[in-house]
Amino acid sequence: MTDNSETPATKKLQWGGRFGAGPAAVMQAINVSIGFDSRLWAEDIAGSRAHAAMLGAQKILTPEDVAAIDAGLADIAAEIGAGTFKFSDTLEDIHTNVEVRLTERIGEAARRLHTGRSRNDQVATDFRLWVRRAIDDVGAQVKDLMLAMATRAAEHAGSVMPGFTHLQTAQPVTFGHHLLAYVEMLARDAGRLEDTRRRLNECPLGAAALAGTSFPIDRFATAAALGFARPTANSLDSVSDRDFALEYLSALSILAMHLSRFAEEIIIWCSSPYRLISLSDAFTTGSSIMPQKRNPDAAELTRAKTGRIFGHLLGLLTVMKGLPMAYAKDMQEDKEPVFDASEAISLCLAATAGMVRDLTADTARMADLAGSGFSTATDLADWLVRVLKMPFRDAHHVTGQIVRLAEARGVDIAQLTLEEMRSAEPRITAEIFDVLTVEASVASRVSYGGTAPANVSAQAAKWLEQLS
Amino acid sequence: MTDNSETPATKKLQWGGRFGAGPAAVMQAINVSIGFDSRLWAEDIAGSRAHAAMLGAQKILTPEDVAAIDAGLADIAAEIGAGTFKFSDTLEDIHTNVEVRLTERIGEAARRLHTGRSRNDQVATDFRLWVRRAIDDVGAQVKDLMLAMATRAAEHAGSVMPGFTHLQTAQPVTFGHHLLAYVEMLARDAGRLEDTRRRLNECPLGAAALAGTSFPIDRFATAAALGFARPTANSLDSVSDRDFALEYLSALSILAMHLSRFAEEIIIWCSSPYRLISLSDAFTTGSSIMPQKRNPDAAELTRAKTGRIFGHLLGLLTVMKGLPMAYAKDMQEDKEPVFDASEAISLCLAATAGMVRDLTADTARMADLAGSGFSTATDLADWLVRVLKMPFRDAHHVTGQIVRLAEARGVDIAQLTLEEMRSAEPRITAEIFDVLTVEASVASRVSYGGTAPANVSAQAAKWLEQLS
Amino acid sequence: MTDNSETPATKKLQWGGRFGAGPAAVMQAINVSIGFDSRLWAEDIAGSRAHAAMLGAQKILTPEDVAAIDAGLADIAAEIGAGTFKFSDTLEDIHTNVEVRLTERIGEAARRLHTGRSRNDQVATDFRLWVRRAIDDVGAQVKDLMLAMATRAAEHAGSVMPGFTHLQTAQPVTFGHHLLAYVEMLARDAGRLEDTRRRLNECPLGAAALAGTSFPIDRFATAAALGFARPTANSLDSVSDRDFALEYLSALSILAMHLSRFAEEIIIWCSSPYRLISLSDAFTTGSSIMPQKRNPDAAELTRAKTGRIFGHLLGLLTVMKGLPMAYAKDMQEDKEPVFDASEAISLCLAATAGMVRDLTADTARMADLAGSGFSTATDLADWLVRVLKMPFRDAHHVTGQIVRLAEARGVDIAQLTLEEMRSAEPRITAEIFDVLTVEASVASRVSYGGTAPANVSAQAAKWLEQLS
Amino acid sequence: MTDNSETPATKKLQWGGRFGAGPAAVMQAINVSIGFDSRLWAEDIAGSRAHAAMLGAQKILTPEDVAAIDAGLADIAAEIGAGTFKFSDTLEDIHTNVEVRLTERIGEAARRLHTGRSRNDQVATDFRLWVRRAIDDVGAQVKDLMLAMATRAAEHAGSVMPGFTHLQTAQPVTFGHHLLAYVEMLARDAGRLEDTRRRLNECPLGAAALAGTSFPIDRFATAAALGFARPTANSLDSVSDRDFALEYLSALSILAMHLSRFAEEIIIWCSSPYRLISLSDAFTTGSSIMPQKRNPDAAELTRAKTGRIFGHLLGLLTVMKGLPMAYAKDMQEDKEPVFDASEAISLCLAATAGMVRDLTADTARMADLAGSGFSTATDLADWLVRVLKMPFRDAHHVTGQIVRLAEARGVDIAQLTLEEMRSAEPRITAEIFDVLTVEASVASRVSYGGTAPANVSAQAAKWLEQLS
Repeated sequence: MTDNSETPATKKLQWGGRFGAGPAAVMQAINVSIGFDSRLWAEDIAGSRAHAAMLGAQKILTPEDVAAIDAGLADIAAEIGAGTFKFSDTLEDIHTNVEVRLTERIGEAARRLHTGRSRNDQVATDFRLWVRRAIDDVGAQVKDLMLAMATRAAEHAGSVMPGFTHLQTAQPVTFGHHLLAYVEMLARDAGRLEDTRRRLNECPLGAAALAGTSFPIDRFATAAALGFARPTANSLDSVSDRDFALEYLSALSILAMHLSRFAEEIIIWCSSPYRLISLSDAFTTGSSIMPQKRNPDAAELTRAKTGRIFGHLLGLLTVMKGLPMAYAKDMQEDKEPVFDASEAISLCLAATAGMVRDLTADTARMADLAGSGFSTATDLADWLVRVLKMPFRDAHHVTGQIVRLAEARGVDIAQLTLEEMRSAEPRITAEIFDVLTVEASVASRVSYGGTAPANVSAQAAKWLEQLS
Repeated sequence: MTDNSETPATKKLQWGGRFGAGPAAVMQAINVSIGFDSRLWAEDIAGSRAHAAMLGAQKILTPEDVAAIDAGLADIAAEIGAGTFKFSDTLEDIHTNVEVRLTERIGEAARRLHTGRSRNDQVATDFRLWVRRAIDDVGAQVKDLMLAMATRAAEHAGSVMPGFTHLQTAQPVTFGHHLLAYVEMLARDAGRLEDTRRRLNECPLGAAALAGTSFPIDRFATAAALGFARPTANSLDSVSDRDFALEYLSALSILAMHLSRFAEEIIIWCSSPYRLISLSDAFTTGSSIMPQKRNPDAAELTRAKTGRIFGHLLGLLTVMKGLPMAYAKDMQEDKEPVFDASEAISLCLAATAGMVRDLTADTARMADLAGSGFSTATDLADWLVRVLKMPFRDAHHVTGQIVRLAEARGVDIAQLTLEEMRSAEPRITAEIFDVLTVEASVASRVSYGGTAPANVSAQAAKWLEQLS
Repeated sequence: MTDNSETPATKKLQWGGRFGAGPAAVMQAINVSIGFDSRLWAEDIAGSRAHAAMLGAQKILTPEDVAAIDAGLADIAAEIGAGTFKFSDTLEDIHTNVEVRLTERIGEAARRLHTGRSRNDQVATDFRLWVRRAIDDVGAQVKDLMLAMATRAAEHAGSVMPGFTHLQTAQPVTFGHHLLAYVEMLARDAGRLEDTRRRLNECPLGAAALAGTSFPIDRFATAAALGFARPTANSLDSVSDRDFALEYLSALSILAMHLSRFAEEIIIWCSSPYRLISLSDAFTTGSSIMPQKRNPDAAELTRAKTGRIFGHLLGLLTVMKGLPMAYAKDMQEDKEPVFDASEAISLCLAATAGMVRDLTADTARMADLAGSGFSTATDLADWLVRVLKMPFRDAHHVTGQIVRLAEARGVDIAQLTLEEMRSAEPRITAEIFDVLTVEASVASRVSYGGTAPANVSAQAAKWLEQLS
Repeated sequence: MTDNSETPATKKLQWGGRFGAGPAAVMQAINVSIGFDSRLWAEDIAGSRAHAAMLGAQKILTPEDVAAIDAGLADIAAEIGAGTFKFSDTLEDIHTNVEVRLTERIGEAARRLHTGRSRNDQVATDFRLWVRRAIDDVGAQVKDLMLAMATRAAEHAGSVMPGFTHLQTAQPVTFGHHLLAYVEMLARDAGRLEDTRRRLNECPLGAAALAGTSFPIDRFATAAALGFARPTANSLDSVSDRDFALEYLSALSILAMHLSRFAEEIIIWCSSPYRLISLSDAFTTGSSIMPQKRNPDAAELTRAKTGRIFGHLLGLLTVMKGLPMAYAKDMQEDKEPVFDASEAISLCLAATAGMVRDLTADTARMADLAGSGFSTATDLADWLVRVLKMPFRDAHHVTGQIVRLAEARGVDIAQLTLEEMRSAEPRITAEIFDVLTVEASVASRVSYGGTAPANVSAQAAKWLEQLS
């Protein structure tokens, strides 16, 4: 991309002319972008069609020229769609590839298309359109994953599993509650994507090279035609900033972080000492020699792809750091990280949704592990506070004594006798045994947002309604 | 911080008891957080007061206990505010420091405060409160910088300066227009901060350790008391996620990127071959030996601090990557990057606003540079298209010929004779000279968002109204 | 720091004079570095003493001046060591703090110290000295950790544990072998630190502001006095680059990555479904209510601190990106990341060494888990290849059949009868049972670098000899 | 890649068999690596040939099998070289693609090739071989750039240009000196690459899946055959670590940082207010409308590609953070960042070397700018110290006065009369004017590493000799 307006044909000749021997091979190699920006073809053609229509409406181009341009661009879109378009490296970028082809097809009129715009606003427009569509696609996948999780959460609203802190069993929770925690995270991720979309949804087209133009263009018309809320308000800003791409990559990074956490849990839960869940064959790989083995490759790759997404965010932040206005060629490096991160997150979301839908929870094993490690000690302490009105601190002290007793005897708290318990606190009654099961524990956590199965069912239902 | 509820006094004893020889010095050193989390004192006390009041309203604590707790906490706040509070490393964190002191002051009642909450939801609440306040502070500074820039933009709506692409003079713009480009960027930065604030503004208090609680707490009440829009909806999510801190650091990173770009421009504009602006003494450092020299240290430091902010974002993303739920001690590493990034961005915003308010623009030099390098070539080409109806491409070709002519003659385009111009295109009339001045050039860019002084004045006025 | 030579006293006056109202508070706040660069005091004084001695030897200063300076600096070092030195923010940095104090103490002679040097080469020298010492300290800690691991490896050369891939049990290994894998990693980390040290060990002192000096200084003498291998060869490079700090942060990042992996393993191994090891009380935190619980906080913090170290690397890379030569104030941002990363890695190394020395391996549990999941299937296949000369592929096919048989019967391979095995491959003999124990499996891996206990003992012994 | 040994044909069947419906499309998409790891084909084949030869020498395979394998692999290498090999996505990775083809070509023997190795050590070997070659290639390019710079430095050993600090003119230096500063940086970069190469040059082949093997393989033989210094010493470490890739990416990041600094300087120096240099047509792009304009695209892209290289380093650090041993599928994400960073740095090095060779220095403009801004003030002060024996501080004070005088009069210091100078310091003699020219200034900086043309010539000659 260059910064000033020029038709591609001229450009070709120009370079062949002025730049004697032609750009060195290395310059060609470092400069060419068609290898990746061909992905913008649909956006580029849509932008040009909107621009041409506006030029017609403003009487800057004749109806005939506009009709020719529009038909020519439609034909090119069809060619690209059909795979018959020949992309050329020597034409450098998608914009020139399309325009040179348009000139071949319709001649003279093509030379008028670039009136009132420049490569700089053109590429900014194309890229915003692409990111906007990517946001919609990723957002839809996020919602699909939320749906998958909420569905399984509804199913497992009452499936008791160990709740971990420090990867140590802490208190029982339900598997449904655990899944809904991710639904909450994903809902915020979806919100971040929506905010990014709303903020970027202004049209740079017509900002021209950097200063605006003297042609009587109608930027509101092109903005509307392309689905933007409005045109951008400052031409320098329009061609110089890529904060929308950075905000998008930030949102993807946080989303990837969330997915990496769930992936880590899947990997741990699938390891043989845990065996809380098993993944389906579709999302694991096996071994000819150990046919029982299911390696959670999809989860591992999801966890790992976080790295490349973080890397792309930081890469583009680095590119933009300290860059004076307006357009600089550095900005050509904005697309690959965005394309690659989009593809990576899409794979991760699809893989995670697939794993969630297919996984089998071993609820017996879950319940069994949930009950180990004196996980209902808090319930005992809370009972002491609630029923005996002990200060919180004293209740904890007494509970600690009882846990030590159970530990010494090699049994769970609930397996102690009432007498043994009373050795620590004489006022304890048999009623205590009602709170010491994992089922009673989760059922008691009825505070808003707590893990009580009734809460979880209600939340899952709320999400399912909202997502369908 | 530990993951389960316990009063600090117990904890102290507990550790002294169970952990025979006591934590090794290295454990103390790696584990202690009071060195940085003492910054959360106001939030911690506010959270505890809201919690106590709610426990009272719900009849979980007696009015007497609540009154004692509330007064005790108010006293501690006063002590800290007065600088008389003694923070202790052996008490590890701000929460324990405050609670131990409360126990010293009010005894028994203090031991009931922790009912229905845990360190995990407590720290999550404190930290959200802190980030929320930081967002408000940074947001106010962003708006102050926007105001400074819009004010100078109004003043320089018509000051012509070179518009650069690739750091080459491309087309004339106005200094006001250039400044308003940053106002647009900053407005989006402010929007990102607001969205972050809105999204984080849910109260985790009452999520307890991870599962919620069996006490009849009223999470809506504490949320409201602390200015949150609502309580968080899932207890596991509440204590496990730090996406709000990451979103905040992302917003700061993008903001810092914007500031680094302006800083780079300041540094270049101040260098002697440019001399477009000069900074005030207040924001430069000098040299005893070259007293005329003004080093733009404030701009350089603003540019550089971008690095630490990016680093903090990456650092926290790395911390959170692959972390299974719920709370893990890893999360203790969430605060320092947020504190340090907040301080850094605050300094950068203050320094930038100061520089903007104080800088002197050398408008004569700006206009002079704006007119060099055939910067009105585009205006000539646009005239050919507009007046002679030449196709865009042909107009560019003719303009190129004229520029070459001027270059060969060592003059600017406007200094060619009409005859010379007509050697390239005979239909050119004397009217052409009207478009070849930098003043005419900027005046003609009246497209929405263009650099025409009238546009710039109107935009500056719009911003000034909006910001005051 | 400023870029030109000036005595601090002048500088103070200079600012008071030329900069009318004095630097704004914000400038003071963004510019001051004494808050962190006071850590360089010992290096600053050592550098100044070496410089003064050289100036004397070169007859640039008189012996009297040199003696006064040397004694004065020694006194200041004593003051700082004793904690009686008053650091002043208004004197900005460590260099000015020391020099102003020197002027107070010895007068006139102090004003001659800065001859033939500048702040730029002075700070570059101080910082290299600091990093060099940090490398030595961190390197010693790395070796201490290697020693701790090799010691435990020798002890556990024959302790069979599950070897994991994808966190699935794959083949038996020994715990000693596992620990020695980290010793190898750490040896490379130590090598990276040594290479960094060797490369940075050139002295920038005498490069002056950027161009060298016209005084007949002897840079080889100051280099030697400060333990550098030689002076740097280009004055511009000397004051402009910070690649040594980046190389150091890279080495720390890779080291931290290694430590984070071991920390992750510790956390997983300590979780109750694994229970392969238990940590000592000293490196865990407990809970008053669940006194049996030991949260692996030290391991979690070690894992987490990786984030800040990565962040500091990225931060400084960002600072340096695109910075024109020579010194720019941006470089003042070089120290904090290096200081903080050094402290963090030191804590992590100490905590990890402590955990390794104190941990208890549950060898029975390890052996038990090692034998699960048909972990000796590879041994069976290898036997088929070795003894029956089956092609590798066919051997794997047959093994897979046998594993399926065992899985169907719910027993381990070794528990199948010979007859059952022969249903898959009739040539199998009773000899097969000799290879199906985990002990036989590890004993057979005698290839160089393999997990056979004899190998492990030998390697551990080699390391122990090398490290002591 | 999977973690256990199996022939690809089996694997294909295995998956078709055990995994009922076959891997979901998403699993295929996230799992497949042939799209990028086909780049390892030459290394994969070389590794397999060395392995087969060793198996023959150790009598594990028959001579006939080895001959068939070797010939078959040679044929496949020829096919791939000729572009006739059909890579298949369903065969996932390069290893399986090659082995399935080998089985097609030579049958039975191919099924014996994998004896005593595994995918895990195979891929680790291939990747080390690839990185080793990349280091050699990048290292050669670094040296070529050093040669280009040293050549121009010899040419411009005496070309005076402004030396900048804070982008303000500080003292005169020579252009040759400036270029040699980068030669020093690049020499350290080359050293880092060499150290990385030396450290990684150990052969993992024979570590097998993770534990070594019971076959009597000779790892020293395969190591030697592949040019490695020795086999790796621990099988778990061999298949689990990727620190060599991280060290390589760190070295590239620091190198890219250096290149970005030079690129920034080129961009600034080319901007019209500076005009210190001009780039050739080959490394700039033009504009049809402003044919005189040369946009420094190659420099901008070099500056920008720093971002992606930093991003890849941080991405892979993130991938490896917290990964338990041994092989996990996460590690499949190791290759793309390394491949892409290698390609990017290669382009940047080629572009920079091309720009250096082709650029034209405007030495008159350089000298002119070098003399502005009282750039010889330090020389005046040094004269006062050296000749009049003034203390450094007083000399600076007097110089400051004289500069102020010159500034007030609007002339350079050298244009003041002797009388005017004496108003500040009466002992000044006419001799002073000898030190106030930029030529005298640079000539006087004869300290080791200083900018005196004689120094620069000698250093350039030293480098030229060393590099040729």
